[in-house]
Amino acid sequence: MASGQLLRAEALACSGCRHACHVMLYSDTKTQLFGRIPIRHIVLMQMRFDGLLGFPGGLVDPLEETLEAGLSRELSEELGLALPIVVEDHVESRYAPASSPSSPSSSSSRLITHFYVKMMEEEQIREVERVAASTATDHGQEVLGMVRVPLYTMKGGGGLASFLSHSFIGNARSQLVDSLLRFNLVASGDLHKALTHSLKIHAHAVDDLRAALALTEVQKKQL
Amino acid sequence: MASGQLLRAEALACSGCRHACHVMLYSDTKTQLFGRIPIRHIVLMQMRFDGLLGFPGGLVDPLEETLEAGLSRELSEELGLALPIVVEDHVESRYAPASSPSSPSSSSSRLITHFYVKMMEEEQIREVERVAASTATDHGQEVLGMVRVPLYTMKGGGGLASFLSHSFIGNARSQLVDSLLRFNLVASGDLHKALTHSLKIHAHAVDDLRAALALTEVQKKQL
Repeated sequence: MASGQLLRAEALACSGCRHACHVMLYSDTKTQLFGRIPIRHIVLMQMRFDGLLGFPGGLVDPLEETLEAGLSRELSEELGLALPIVVEDHVESRYAPASSPSSPSSSSSRLITHFYVKMMEEEQIREVERVAASTATDHGQEVLGMVRVPLYTMKGGGGLASFLSHSFIGNARSQLVDSLLRFNLVASGDLHKALTHSLKIHAHAVDDLRAALALTEVQKKQL
Repeated sequence: MASGQLLRAEALACSGCRHACHVMLYSDTKTQLFGRIPIRHIVLMQMRFDGLLGFPGGLVDPLEETLEAGLSRELSEELGLALPIVVEDHVESRYAPASSPSSPSSSSSRLITHFYVKMMEEEQIREVERVAASTATDHGQEVLGMVRVPLYTMKGGGGLASFLSHSFIGNARSQLVDSLLRFNLVASGDLHKALTHSLKIHAHAVDDLRAALALTEVQKKQL
């Protein structure tokens, strides 16, 4: 077991800890982008109410329900469908990283994140997307939209590298990278290359962000 | 007219230029996040096939169709709906910025981006989301998912600031910021604060990205 990880039983034994459960839903696919780039797998993430990318799920109180029942309940709110999650879907539990500037912790109790991965049929994934964008309770509330993760790398370098350069909640980016390796959805060397390129895309975005900031400074002077 | 901008007629007079048209669709809304934070406006963007955030739209050849007819055609593919765009929706035209590491230019012809903004009814926006995630031709191809832009700022700083720290195609981030100011969807001072905070969130993400990269290095050693 890698450092920082907890056994599910160990995690549950922590009295006073808060628990968050999230799941990566994915399927295989034979479709190709532009009829020539194999998409291989459809992996779902979401734009959260706080403007960050993350996996579906949320806080669960193990005194009131099992982790898996709580996660299924969160999914029915966020995705609008009953998706049973079982103990066998559990991948890892670990302490959440220290709070980031986007989400300072207001609580002193430690947060443990439990991560699950569930493989589905492609048609089920499409059904999740359809329902999440229409009748799900949390649509436009906790969830601002479901997105697929591009696992391919295009000629110019776009695809997975660009996606990984976005801003993610907590350890969601590591959970994604770890799962892509663990379930062999992207080859280790390709993922390494994508992340290296991702750092460059990320660095490049600073100038663009400063240019956008300058727009608001011009506006302030005009007022 | 701000520097770098072109009149629509000037832009069309450039022989040999390529033209891209994009639109920001938005509506007013009375809904509140968690029943207490006013959402005020629903603004739509999308996760693109190249892993970057951008507005719906695409390349148009003015020798074959008007800019607006071309944009409407792109929207019918990406969103699955007929959304007529007219000259009155045009906001600005400008040369695209130099290519970024995520999208190096393979063509020597200059790209001019034409931007449009169209206000809709909330129910129409919801219809766009529903159809885009189900029957639209480009769903899962050019479009990986539609997302709403959070315009609010939560207690801990999440919301607009986090969203603006993501990676965007071309000048989409500036188009968003400029439109939020121009149509008075976010107060200038609030937007300035959000962008300042956004730079911090963006800087913080480097450590997280490096941690994810380290995961792939561990994996390589284990192989």
